[in-house]
Amino acid sequence: TLPGGMVSTMNAILVEDLLSGSVPVGSQTVVEGWVRSKRDSKAGISFVAVHDGSHFDPIQAVVPNDLDNYESEVLAITTGCAVRIEGELTESQGKGQQFEIQATRVEVVGWIADPDSYPIAKKRHSFEYLRTVAHLRPRTNTFGAIARVRTTLANAIHSYFFERGFHWINTPLITASDCEGAGELFRVSTLDLMNLPIENGAIDFGEDFFAAESFLTVSGQLNVEAYCLAMSRVYTFGPTFRAENSNTSRHLAEFWMVEPEIAFADLSDNADLAEDLLTHVLTRVLDERENDIAFFQQRIDGTVIDRMRSIIDSKFEHMDYSEAIDILRQSGEPFEFPVGWGLDLQSEHERYLTDKYVGRPVI
Amino acid sequence: TLPGGMVSTMNAILVEDLLSGSVPVGSQTVVEGWVRSKRDSKAGISFVAVHDGSHFDPIQAVVPNDLDNYESEVLAITTGCAVRIEGELTESQGKGQQFEIQATRVEVVGWIADPDSYPIAKKRHSFEYLRTVAHLRPRTNTFGAIARVRTTLANAIHSYFFERGFHWINTPLITASDCEGAGELFRVSTLDLMNLPIENGAIDFGEDFFAAESFLTVSGQLNVEAYCLAMSRVYTFGPTFRAENSNTSRHLAEFWMVEPEIAFADLSDNADLAEDLLTHVLTRVLDERENDIAFFQQRIDGTVIDRMRSIIDSKFEHMDYSEAIDILRQSGEPFEFPVGWGLDLQSEHERYLTDKYVGRPVI
Repeated sequence: TLPGGMVSTMNAILVEDLLSGSVPVGSQTVVEGWVRSKRDSKAGISFVAVHDGSHFDPIQAVVPNDLDNYESEVLAITTGCAVRIEGELTESQGKGQQFEIQATRVEVVGWIADPDSYPIAKKRHSFEYLRTVAHLRPRTNTFGAIARVRTTLANAIHSYFFERGFHWINTPLITASDCEGAGELFRVSTLDLMNLPIENGAIDFGEDFFAAESFLTVSGQLNVEAYCLAMSRVYTFGPTFRAENSNTSRHLAEFWMVEPEIAFADLSDNADLAEDLLTHVLTRVLDERENDIAFFQQRIDGTVIDRMRSIIDSKFEHMDYSEAIDILRQSGEPFEFPVGWGLDLQSEHERYLTDKYVGRPVI
Repeated sequence: TLPGGMVSTMNAILVEDLLSGSVPVGSQTVVEGWVRSKRDSKAGISFVAVHDGSHFDPIQAVVPNDLDNYESEVLAITTGCAVRIEGELTESQGKGQQFEIQATRVEVVGWIADPDSYPIAKKRHSFEYLRTVAHLRPRTNTFGAIARVRTTLANAIHSYFFERGFHWINTPLITASDCEGAGELFRVSTLDLMNLPIENGAIDFGEDFFAAESFLTVSGQLNVEAYCLAMSRVYTFGPTFRAENSNTSRHLAEFWMVEPEIAFADLSDNADLAEDLLTHVLTRVLDERENDIAFFQQRIDGTVIDRMRSIIDSKFEHMDYSEAIDILRQSGEPFEFPVGWGLDLQSEHERYLTDKYVGRPVI
């Protein structure tokens, strides 16, 4: 299945390829993955739903009871088992899926030792519970969808910049600079905390790994700007850290951030770039991860598709800071945080400008 | 120049596009970049070499003395100035370049305050010296070539996996696990070093940011394996850290590492994947960054092209550990480190196997 005959014995077809219609009906095929659910009919047929992470939906294998290991193994299969199933791809008679596999061989590659205590049942689990089984939560709908969307997002971001002559700059994560105080810092050190080198009443960081006080970066901006003034179009896309115990939706303590820099450009060029990038990336995600986003819409956030479409379809409103402050002052809204020239805009202010005043994205 | 009319006022053409022949001779064009060198002829013509980071070579602009600002500005241009040059793309009469620009307008966007002390002269600088001017070294041939090759490498790696249905997993960089002791750890903390919380004679990491002793990751393996057993084909590509004061060519204290994991595969599939990935990536770099690699061959490492080609052209030798130990034992080579079943292979051992015994890559 992999282009170029890459891996000799890996001849399984991804569920995504089977469900997308890119494999002709009637083909002999092999699917490898994990059992999401199984149902044994009284007529002596088992229906095994197999997922392999490539697609939101599993594919259903129809297993007849004339297989050699039907009694001994197929009937014993439980959710979570790793299986390899060979058979013919057919159009499905059942509802909810277009294709299925008429199995001619079922191999159980890995059993679940104690099915009754398998942590990821076919039901809705809370995120708090899933934190306690982090090794298995990638098998859930939500975490699988997140991983697929993240991959598509990352590929869309990298491709966007690569196709436009940008250079990806890996700015250092361990740094001695604090980037204009953009956030609280994590210290990085190899000093023995129980035996710190003290000189004149202060820690002697000359004894530390880099012979200087060192932190995790809060932004690659300083470094990437130097590259911008040599390479013209550059961006960072890497991990960034903020040691803020804030628990807001703004960012985690560790998150991946994109920072483009363009030379010979002004603020308006920069705003256009941001708009074009967002539109490109969201379009790719809606096009390529439709099932995953539909799941988010249904279970996590009922407005996500509308909001993505509205960003794609709207021309962003360009507004300068002074204009924004004037509008907020005259709004008569009861904001929690004060509005004044020189103060940062808070989320509530940004939300008023985009949602109420302009009715589309503001930059 | 950017696809999709992305940036309204950014209408400069990249030097790479001008030199590659993708812009028709006779076109009116604009180039924006930095002056690598300038020569004023007695005949009243100036030759300005402009680089913008998109290509190893700068493009030459031929500036006639009938421009309004020729005396006042063009003659005063020095290495490092930021310029915007408009003119017609023509075939070059000079040797060493195929195309040049007959300038009709030269705008100096940024001057060098003190040209005599501009740190990046048109001569060869030592790497040690360039460390002291890190903000300007991206303008040198070497660092520009490194940035371009890294971008191509990164794009080749991400594209390879994306096209083959792999998911890019961002494993956590801050972690409490030490990944089987793969390397020495950097501690990550927000504790006040001058006022550490001590309980029962030990640091109380319950008071630290994550309420646990935390480190920078030495490998995302543990986390990505969990994703592999749900998503089938996954990889990490992110920063990794080793607090080893070793100064070898193996790795830096901070480096980017690729870790693929494939489910339903054996060691041989894994070896095939590694070979195919390396071949793919090196081929892309040789194809797309020919000038940069030629520069490395000439100035940094005279065997780099041969070694890249040999990896691309050779079928890798598969050899298991026991076989390698036997060969090394019987080699009669005076190795510095001991050879014995159960001991790690050192660089000298690997080099003997690849360079002397097999004569091509061994996996």
